[in-house]
Amino acid sequence: MARQARAVATQQQIVLRAAEVFDRVGYYGARVEEIVESARITKGALYFHFGSKDGLARHIIGEQQRLAVRSLEAIESTDASALEQMVMLCHEMARQTTDPLMRAGIRLTVELGPADALGDAPADPFLPWTEWATRLATRAVEEGDIVETVSPPMLARHLIGAVTGAQLVSRVRTWFTDLDGRVEEMWQVLLPGIVPAGRHDRILSASSARWCAEPV
Amino acid sequence: MARQARAVATQQQIVLRAAEVFDRVGYYGARVEEIVESARITKGALYFHFGSKDGLARHIIGEQQRLAVRSLEAIESTDASALEQMVMLCHEMARQTTDPLMRAGIRLTVELGPADALGDAPADPFLPWTEWATRLATRAVEEGDIVETVSPPMLARHLIGAVTGAQLVSRVRTWFTDLDGRVEEMWQVLLPGIVPAGRHDRILSASSARWCAEPV
Repeated sequence: MARQARAVATQQQIVLRAAEVFDRVGYYGARVEEIVESARITKGALYFHFGSKDGLARHIIGEQQRLAVRSLEAIESTDASALEQMVMLCHEMARQTTDPLMRAGIRLTVELGPADALGDAPADPFLPWTEWATRLATRAVEEGDIVETVSPPMLARHLIGAVTGAQLVSRVRTWFTDLDGRVEEMWQVLLPGIVPAGRHDRILSASSARWCAEPV
Repeated sequence: MARQARAVATQQQIVLRAAEVFDRVGYYGARVEEIVESARITKGALYFHFGSKDGLARHIIGEQQRLAVRSLEAIESTDASALEQMVMLCHEMARQTTDPLMRAGIRLTVELGPADALGDAPADPFLPWTEWATRLATRAVEEGDIVETVSPPMLARHLIGAVTGAQLVSRVRTWFTDLDGRVEEMWQVLLPGIVPAGRHDRILSASSARWCAEPV
Protein backbone atom coordinates (compact mmCIF):
# COMPACT_ATOMS: atom_id res chain seq x y z
CA MET A 1 0.00 0.00 0.00
CA ALA A 2 2.83 2.40 0.89
CA ARG A 3 4.43 1.60 -2.44
CA GLN A 4 1.15 2.34 -4.22
CA ALA A 5 0.75 5.66 -2.38
CA ARG A 6 4.27 6.64 -3.45
CA ALA A 7 3.48 5.70 -7.05
CA VAL A 8 0.34 7.87 -7.01
CA ALA A 9 2.28 10.80 -5.54
CA THR A 10 4.96 10.45 -8.21
CA GLN A 11 2.33 10.30 -10.95
CA GLN A 12 0.65 13.46 -9.63
CA GLN A 13 3.99 15.23 -9.43
CA ILE A 14 4.79 14.30 -13.05
CA VAL A 15 1.32 15.37 -14.25
CA LEU A 16 1.47 18.77 -12.53
CA ARG A 17 4.97 19.60 -13.78
CA ALA A 18 4.30 18.28 -17.27
CA ALA A 19 1.08 20.32 -17.42
CA GLU A 20 3.05 23.48 -16.65
CA VAL A 21 5.51 22.69 -19.43
CA PHE A 22 2.82 21.72 -21.99
CA ASP A 23 0.82 24.83 -21.07
CA ARG A 24 3.83 27.07 -21.59
CA VAL A 25 5.43 25.68 -24.73
CA GLY A 26 2.87 23.26 -26.16
CA TYR A 27 3.18 19.60 -27.11
CA TYR A 28 5.83 20.13 -29.75
CA GLY A 29 7.90 22.55 -27.69
CA ALA A 30 7.88 20.33 -24.59
CA ARG A 31 11.05 18.29 -24.10
CA VAL A 32 10.90 15.15 -21.95
CA GLU A 33 14.20 16.27 -20.36
CA GLU A 34 12.59 19.50 -19.14
CA ILE A 35 9.57 17.68 -17.67
CA VAL A 36 11.81 15.12 -15.94
CA GLU A 37 14.03 17.85 -14.48
CA SER A 38 11.09 19.98 -13.32
CA ALA A 39 9.37 16.98 -11.69
CA ARG A 40 12.68 15.84 -10.10
CA ILE A 41 12.24 12.31 -11.37
CA THR A 42 14.14 10.01 -13.69
CA LYS A 43 13.25 9.51 -17.33
CA GLY A 44 12.68 5.87 -16.41
CA ALA A 45 9.96 6.86 -13.91
CA LEU A 46 8.20 8.96 -16.54
CA TYR A 47 8.21 6.13 -19.07
CA PHE A 48 7.22 3.61 -16.38
CA HIS A 49 4.11 5.62 -15.45
CA PHE A 50 3.02 6.98 -18.83
CA GLY A 51 4.82 4.99 -21.53
CA SER A 52 5.70 8.02 -23.64
CA LYS A 53 5.31 11.78 -24.08
CA ASP A 54 2.13 10.93 -26.02
CA GLY A 55 0.85 8.79 -23.15
CA LEU A 56 1.49 11.62 -20.72
CA ALA A 57 -0.35 14.08 -22.99
CA ARG A 58 -3.29 11.64 -23.26
CA HIS A 59 -3.42 11.31 -19.49
CA ILE A 60 -3.52 15.11 -19.03
CA ILE A 61 -6.30 15.45 -21.61
CA GLY A 62 -8.26 12.79 -19.72
CA GLU A 63 -7.73 14.56 -16.38
CA GLN A 64 -8.91 17.86 -17.83
CA GLN A 65 -12.10 16.25 -19.11
CA ARG A 66 -12.69 14.47 -15.81
CA LEU A 67 -12.35 17.68 -13.78
CA ALA A 68 -14.61 19.56 -16.21
CA VAL A 69 -17.35 16.93 -15.90
CA ARG A 70 -17.03 16.87 -12.09
CA SER A 71 -17.72 20.60 -11.75
CA LEU A 72 -20.53 20.40 -14.31
CA GLU A 73 -22.21 17.68 -12.25
CA ALA A 74 -21.77 19.76 -9.10
CA ILE A 75 -23.32 22.83 -10.73
CA GLU A 76 -26.25 20.78 -12.00
CA SER A 77 -26.93 19.45 -8.51
CA THR A 78 -27.42 22.95 -7.03
CA ASP A 79 -30.98 24.23 -6.73
CA ALA A 80 -30.30 27.28 -8.91
CA SER A 81 -32.49 27.86 -11.97
CA ALA A 82 -31.22 26.47 -15.28
CA LEU A 83 -30.39 29.99 -16.48
CA GLU A 84 -28.39 30.66 -13.33
CA GLN A 85 -26.62 27.33 -13.77
CA MET A 86 -25.69 28.38 -17.32
CA VAL A 87 -24.12 31.56 -15.94
CA MET A 88 -22.28 29.50 -13.31
CA LEU A 89 -21.06 27.04 -15.94
CA CYS A 90 -19.51 29.78 -18.08
CA HIS A 91 -17.77 31.45 -15.15
CA GLU A 92 -16.54 28.09 -13.86
CA MET A 93 -15.28 27.10 -17.34
CA ALA A 94 -13.40 30.42 -17.48
CA ARG A 95 -12.07 30.02 -13.93
CA GLN A 96 -10.74 26.55 -14.67
CA THR A 97 -8.45 27.99 -17.31
CA THR A 98 -6.42 29.64 -14.56
CA ASP A 99 -5.33 26.08 -13.64
CA PRO A 100 -2.30 24.98 -15.70
CA LEU A 101 -3.63 21.41 -15.81
CA MET A 102 -6.87 22.54 -17.45
CA ARG A 103 -5.06 24.85 -19.85
CA ALA A 104 -2.61 22.09 -20.76
CA GLY A 105 -5.48 19.66 -21.41
CA ILE A 106 -7.25 22.13 -23.68
CA ARG A 107 -4.04 23.17 -25.43
CA LEU A 108 -2.96 19.57 -26.00
CA THR A 109 -6.34 18.68 -27.50
CA VAL A 110 -6.13 21.77 -29.70
CA GLU A 111 -2.59 21.00 -30.82
CA LEU A 112 -2.93 17.27 -31.32
CA GLY A 113 -6.51 17.72 -32.58
CA PRO A 114 -8.48 15.23 -34.61
CA ALA A 115 -5.68 14.97 -37.22
CA ASP A 116 -3.38 13.02 -34.89
CA ALA A 117 -6.06 11.22 -32.89
CA LEU A 118 -4.80 10.20 -29.46
CA GLY A 119 -6.06 6.64 -29.11
CA ASP A 120 -9.22 6.63 -27.03
CA ALA A 121 -8.82 10.21 -25.77
CA PRO A 122 -11.72 12.48 -26.70
CA ALA A 123 -10.78 14.79 -29.58
CA ASP A 124 -13.08 17.61 -28.48
CA PRO A 125 -12.10 19.38 -25.24
CA PHE A 126 -15.35 21.35 -25.39
CA LEU A 127 -17.78 18.45 -25.69
CA PRO A 128 -18.84 18.07 -22.04
CA TRP A 129 -19.32 21.82 -21.68
CA THR A 130 -21.35 21.99 -24.89
CA GLU A 131 -23.57 19.07 -23.92
CA TRP A 132 -24.23 20.45 -20.44
CA ALA A 133 -24.94 23.96 -21.77
CA THR A 134 -27.41 22.52 -24.31
CA ARG A 135 -29.25 20.64 -21.60
CA LEU A 136 -29.37 23.69 -19.32
CA ALA A 137 -30.56 25.97 -22.16
CA THR A 138 -33.34 23.50 -22.95
CA ARG A 139 -34.42 23.56 -19.30
CA ALA A 140 -34.18 27.37 -19.14
CA VAL A 141 -36.60 27.60 -22.10
CA GLU A 142 -38.96 25.18 -20.32
CA GLU A 143 -38.67 27.27 -17.15
CA GLY A 144 -39.63 30.38 -19.14
CA ASP A 145 -36.32 32.19 -18.49
CA ILE A 146 -35.26 32.05 -22.17
CA VAL A 147 -37.56 32.93 -25.06
CA GLU A 148 -38.77 29.98 -27.14
CA THR A 149 -37.33 31.36 -30.37
CA VAL A 150 -33.80 30.64 -29.07
CA SER A 151 -32.35 27.31 -30.20
CA PRO A 152 -30.73 25.64 -27.15
CA PRO A 153 -27.93 23.81 -29.05
CA MET A 154 -27.17 26.96 -31.03
CA LEU A 155 -27.02 29.08 -27.88
CA ALA A 156 -24.84 26.43 -26.19
CA ARG A 157 -22.37 26.38 -29.10
CA HIS A 158 -22.26 30.17 -29.03
CA LEU A 159 -21.61 30.25 -25.27
CA ILE A 160 -18.79 27.71 -25.38
CA GLY A 161 -17.19 29.44 -28.36
CA ALA A 162 -17.50 32.85 -26.72
CA VAL A 163 -16.03 31.70 -23.39
CA THR A 164 -13.22 29.90 -25.25
CA GLY A 165 -12.47 33.05 -27.22
CA ALA A 166 -12.64 35.20 -24.08
CA GLN A 167 -10.03 32.91 -22.53
CA LEU A 168 -7.72 33.20 -25.48
CA VAL A 169 -8.02 36.98 -25.82
CA SER A 170 -7.74 37.45 -22.06
CA ARG A 171 -4.67 35.24 -21.89
CA VAL A 172 -2.91 37.19 -24.63
CA ARG A 173 -3.82 40.61 -23.25
CA THR A 174 -3.83 40.30 -19.46
CA TRP A 175 -2.89 36.71 -18.53
CA PHE A 176 -6.48 36.00 -17.41
CA THR A 177 -6.80 39.05 -15.16
CA ASP A 178 -9.81 40.38 -17.07
CA LEU A 179 -11.32 36.98 -17.89
CA ASP A 180 -14.13 37.02 -15.33
CA GLY A 181 -15.04 40.54 -16.45
CA ARG A 182 -15.19 39.38 -20.07
CA VAL A 183 -17.57 36.55 -19.18
CA GLU A 184 -19.73 39.03 -17.24
CA GLU A 185 -19.80 41.29 -20.29
CA MET A 186 -20.80 38.34 -22.45
CA TRP A 187 -23.89 37.80 -20.30
CA GLN A 188 -24.65 41.55 -20.26
CA VAL A 189 -24.67 41.44 -24.05
CA LEU A 190 -26.70 38.23 -24.30
CA LEU A 191 -29.25 38.26 -21.48
CA PRO A 192 -31.43 41.22 -22.58
CA GLY A 193 -31.85 39.47 -25.93
CA ILE A 194 -32.73 35.99 -24.70
CA VAL A 195 -34.67 36.60 -21.47
CA PRO A 196 -38.40 37.29 -22.09
CA ALA A 197 -39.33 40.98 -21.62
CA GLY A 198 -41.57 40.09 -18.68
CA ARG A 199 -38.61 38.66 -16.75
CA HIS A 200 -36.03 41.38 -17.40
CA ASP A 201 -36.14 42.24 -13.69
CA ARG A 202 -34.39 38.92 -13.03
CA ILE A 203 -31.43 39.62 -15.33
CA LEU A 204 -29.28 41.21 -12.63
CA SER A 205 -29.65 38.33 -10.18
CA ALA A 206 -29.22 35.69 -12.91
CA SER A 207 -26.02 37.30 -14.16
CA SER A 208 -24.51 37.37 -10.68
CA ALA A 209 -24.99 33.63 -10.10
CA ARG A 210 -21.72 31.90 -9.23
CA TRP A 211 -20.75 28.40 -8.19
CA CYS A 212 -17.71 27.97 -5.96
CA ALA A 213 -15.90 24.68 -5.76
CA GLU A 214 -15.48 23.45 -2.20
CA PRO A 215 -11.86 23.33 -1.15
CA VAL A 216 -10.51 19.80 -1.76
CA MET B 1 16.14 45.91 -59.71
CA ALA B 2 16.30 42.27 -60.75
CA ARG B 3 18.31 41.57 -57.64
CA GLN B 4 15.72 43.36 -55.52
CA ALA B 5 12.87 41.41 -57.13
CA ARG B 6 14.67 38.17 -56.35
CA ALA B 7 15.17 39.28 -52.76
CA VAL B 8 11.43 40.02 -52.39
CA ALA B 9 10.53 36.64 -53.91
CA THR B 10 12.90 34.87 -51.52
CA GLN B 11 11.46 36.77 -48.56
CA GLN B 12 7.91 35.82 -49.56
CA GLN B 13 8.91 32.20 -49.98
CA ILE B 14 10.47 32.15 -46.51
CA VAL B 15 7.44 33.86 -44.95
CA LEU B 16 4.92 31.44 -46.51
CA ARG B 17 6.85 28.31 -45.56
CA ALA B 18 7.69 29.60 -42.09
CA ALA B 19 4.02 30.49 -41.55
CA GLU B 20 3.03 26.91 -42.36
CA VAL B 21 5.56 25.58 -39.85
CA PHE B 22 4.65 28.09 -37.10
CA ASP B 23 0.96 27.41 -37.71
CA ARG B 24 1.46 23.68 -37.37
CA VAL B 25 3.88 23.37 -34.45
CA GLY B 26 4.00 26.87 -32.91
CA TYR B 27 6.93 29.13 -32.14
CA TYR B 28 8.64 26.75 -29.74
CA GLY B 29 8.13 23.67 -31.88
CA ALA B 30 9.42 25.34 -35.05
CA ARG B 31 13.02 24.48 -35.91
CA VAL B 32 14.96 26.85 -38.19
CA GLU B 33 16.26 23.78 -40.03
CA GLU B 34 12.72 22.72 -40.94
CA ILE B 35 11.79 26.20 -42.21
CA VAL B 36 15.00 26.43 -44.27
CA GLU B 37 14.41 23.01 -45.78
CA SER B 38 10.77 23.67 -46.57
CA ALA B 39 11.56 27.05 -48.20
CA ARG B 40 14.51 25.50 -50.11
CA ILE B 41 16.86 28.23 -48.98
CA THR B 42 20.07 28.37 -46.95
CA LYS B 43 20.17 29.24 -43.27
CA GLY B 44 22.30 32.22 -44.31
CA ALA B 45 19.46 33.56 -46.50
CA LEU B 46 17.01 33.29 -43.61
CA TYR B 47 19.30 35.16 -41.22
CA PHE B 48 20.15 37.72 -43.93
CA HIS B 49 16.48 38.58 -44.47
CA PHE B 50 15.08 38.29 -40.94
CA GLY B 51 18.03 38.32 -38.53
CA SER B 52 16.67 35.49 -36.36
CA LYS B 53 13.73 33.16 -35.71
CA ASP B 54 12.35 35.95 -33.53
CA GLY B 55 12.72 38.46 -36.35
CA LEU B 56 10.89 36.10 -38.70
CA ALA B 57 8.08 35.65 -36.17
CA ARG B 58 7.83 39.43 -35.71
CA HIS B 59 7.60 39.90 -39.47
CA ILE B 60 4.76 37.35 -39.73
CA ILE B 61 2.85 39.02 -36.89
CA GLY B 62 3.24 42.36 -38.71
CA GLU B 63 1.99 40.88 -42.01
CA GLN B 64 -1.06 39.37 -40.31
CA GLN B 65 -1.96 42.73 -38.78
CA ARG B 66 -1.43 44.53 -42.10
CA LEU B 67 -3.68 42.13 -44.01
CA ALA B 68 -6.36 42.35 -41.29
CA VAL B 69 -6.39 46.16 -41.44
CA ARG B 70 -6.50 46.12 -45.26
CA SER B 71 -9.68 44.04 -45.38
CA LEU B 72 -11.24 46.10 -42.57
CA GLU B 73 -10.64 49.28 -44.55
CA ALA B 74 -12.12 47.66 -47.65
CA ILE B 75 -15.24 46.56 -45.75
CA GLU B 76 -15.68 50.05 -44.28
CA SER B 77 -15.51 51.60 -47.75
CA THR B 78 -18.50 49.59 -49.02
CA ASP B 79 -21.92 51.27 -48.93
CA ALA B 80 -23.43 48.57 -46.71
CA SER B 81 -25.06 49.62 -43.42
CA ALA B 82 -22.87 49.55 -40.32
CA LEU B 83 -24.70 46.44 -39.04
CA GLU B 84 -24.11 44.66 -42.36
CA GLN B 85 -20.45 45.68 -42.21
CA MET B 86 -20.22 44.14 -38.73
CA VAL B 87 -21.56 40.86 -40.13
CA MET B 88 -19.06 41.10 -43.02
CA LEU B 89 -16.21 41.81 -40.62
CA CYS B 90 -16.90 38.72 -38.51
CA HIS B 91 -17.18 36.42 -41.53
CA GLU B 92 -14.04 37.91 -43.07
CA MET B 93 -12.13 37.55 -39.79
CA ALA B 94 -13.20 33.90 -39.67
CA ARG B 95 -12.35 33.37 -43.37
CA GLN B 96 -8.86 34.78 -42.89
CA THR B 97 -8.07 32.01 -40.43
CA THR B 98 -8.12 29.53 -43.29
CA ASP B 99 -4.89 31.26 -44.46
CA PRO B 100 -1.83 29.75 -42.74
CA LEU B 101 -0.14 33.19 -42.65
CA MET B 102 -3.04 34.67 -40.66
CA ARG B 103 -3.22 31.66 -38.37
CA ALA B 104 0.53 31.79 -37.80
CA GLY B 105 0.36 35.52 -37.00
CA ILE B 106 -2.40 34.99 -34.46
CA ARG B 107 -0.77 31.90 -32.96
CA LEU B 108 2.61 33.60 -32.67
CA THR B 109 1.07 36.58 -30.90
CA VAL B 110 -0.79 34.22 -28.59
CA GLU B 111 2.33 32.17 -27.83
CA LEU B 112 4.82 35.01 -27.48
CA GLY B 113 2.15 37.22 -25.90
CA PRO B 114 2.78 40.32 -23.84
CA ALA B 115 5.11 38.38 -21.51
CA ASP B 116 7.90 38.17 -24.12
CA ALA B 117 7.13 41.44 -25.92
CA LEU B 118 8.38 41.33 -29.50
CA GLY B 119 10.06 44.72 -29.91
CA ASP B 120 7.71 47.05 -31.70
CA ALA B 121 5.29 44.34 -32.82
CA PRO B 122 1.74 44.80 -31.48
CA ALA B 123 1.03 42.41 -28.61
CA ASP B 124 -2.70 42.14 -29.33
CA PRO B 125 -3.62 40.33 -32.57
CA PHE B 126 -7.25 41.29 -31.99
CA LEU B 127 -6.83 45.04 -31.58
CA PRO B 128 -7.64 46.21 -35.14
CA TRP B 129 -10.70 43.94 -35.29
CA THR B 130 -11.91 45.16 -31.89
CA GLU B 131 -11.44 48.83 -32.77
CA TRP B 132 -13.24 48.49 -36.11
CA ALA B 133 -16.10 46.51 -34.57
CA THR B 134 -16.53 49.16 -31.86
CA ARG B 135 -16.72 51.92 -34.46
CA LEU B 136 -19.21 49.98 -36.57
CA ALA B 137 -21.39 49.13 -33.55
CA THR B 138 -21.46 52.81 -32.59
CA ARG B 139 -22.60 53.71 -36.12
CA ALA B 140 -25.18 50.89 -36.14
CA VAL B 141 -26.72 52.33 -32.96
CA GLU B 142 -26.78 55.78 -34.60
CA GLU B 143 -28.40 54.26 -37.69
CA GLY B 144 -31.10 52.70 -35.50
CA ASP B 145 -30.18 49.10 -36.38
CA ILE B 146 -29.00 48.28 -32.86
CA VAL B 147 -30.92 49.21 -29.70
CA GLU B 148 -29.45 52.04 -27.65
CA THR B 149 -29.13 49.93 -24.53
CA VAL B 150 -26.29 47.93 -26.16
CA SER B 151 -22.80 49.16 -25.31
CA PRO B 152 -20.77 49.28 -28.57
CA PRO B 153 -17.35 48.47 -27.05
CA MET B 154 -18.88 45.65 -25.02
CA LEU B 155 -20.62 44.20 -28.07
CA ALA B 156 -17.38 44.54 -30.07
CA ARG B 157 -15.36 42.68 -27.43
CA HIS B 158 -18.01 39.97 -27.34
CA LEU B 159 -17.98 39.59 -31.15
CA ILE B 160 -14.19 39.34 -31.40
CA GLY B 161 -14.05 36.88 -28.53
CA ALA B 162 -16.88 34.79 -29.97
CA VAL B 163 -15.35 34.66 -33.47
CA THR B 164 -11.94 33.82 -31.98
CA GLY B 165 -13.50 31.02 -29.96
CA ALA B 166 -15.47 29.77 -32.97
CA GLN B 167 -12.17 29.56 -34.89
CA LEU B 168 -10.51 27.57 -32.15
CA VAL B 169 -13.41 25.16 -31.62
CA SER B 170 -13.91 24.78 -35.38
CA ARG B 171 -10.21 24.11 -35.93
CA VAL B 172 -10.16 21.40 -33.30
CA ARG B 173 -13.36 19.73 -34.44
CA THR B 174 -13.53 20.09 -38.22
CA TRP B 175 -10.37 21.95 -39.37
CA PHE B 176 -12.45 25.06 -40.18
CA THR B 177 -15.09 23.26 -42.25
CA ASP B 178 -17.93 24.42 -40.01
CA LEU B 179 -16.45 27.84 -39.18
CA ASP B 180 -18.65 29.93 -41.46
CA GLY B 181 -21.70 28.10 -40.12
CA ARG B 182 -20.62 28.85 -36.56
CA VAL B 183 -20.32 32.59 -37.33
CA GLU B 184 -23.76 32.49 -38.95
CA GLU B 185 -25.14 30.84 -35.81
CA MET B 186 -23.49 33.52 -33.68
CA TRP B 187 -25.46 36.19 -35.54
CA GLN B 188 -28.66 34.14 -35.36
CA VAL B 189 -28.24 34.07 -31.59
CA LEU B 190 -27.30 37.76 -31.29
CA LEU B 191 -29.38 39.68 -33.84
CA PRO B 192 -32.89 39.14 -32.41
CA GLY B 193 -31.60 40.52 -29.10
CA ILE B 194 -29.83 43.63 -30.40
CA VAL B 195 -31.93 44.72 -33.42
CA PRO B 196 -34.95 46.89 -32.40
CA ALA B 197 -38.27 45.01 -32.63
CA GLY B 198 -39.46 47.37 -35.38
CA ARG B 199 -36.59 46.31 -37.64
CA HIS B 200 -36.68 42.55 -37.13
CA ASP B 201 -37.72 42.18 -40.78
CA ARG B 202 -34.18 43.26 -41.73
CA ILE B 203 -32.43 40.55 -39.69
CA LEU B 204 -32.36 38.03 -42.53
CA SER B 205 -30.78 40.38 -45.07
CA ALA B 206 -28.32 41.79 -42.50
CA SER B 207 -27.18 38.32 -41.48
CA SER B 208 -26.52 37.33 -45.08
CA ALA B 209 -24.21 40.30 -45.77
CA ARG B 210 -20.79 39.18 -47.01
CA TRP B 211 -17.72 40.96 -48.28
CA CYS B 212 -15.56 39.17 -50.82
CA ALA B 213 -11.96 40.16 -51.36
CA GLU B 214 -11.15 40.83 -55.00
CA PRO B 215 -8.64 38.35 -56.37
CA VAL B 216 -5.14 39.83 -56.03
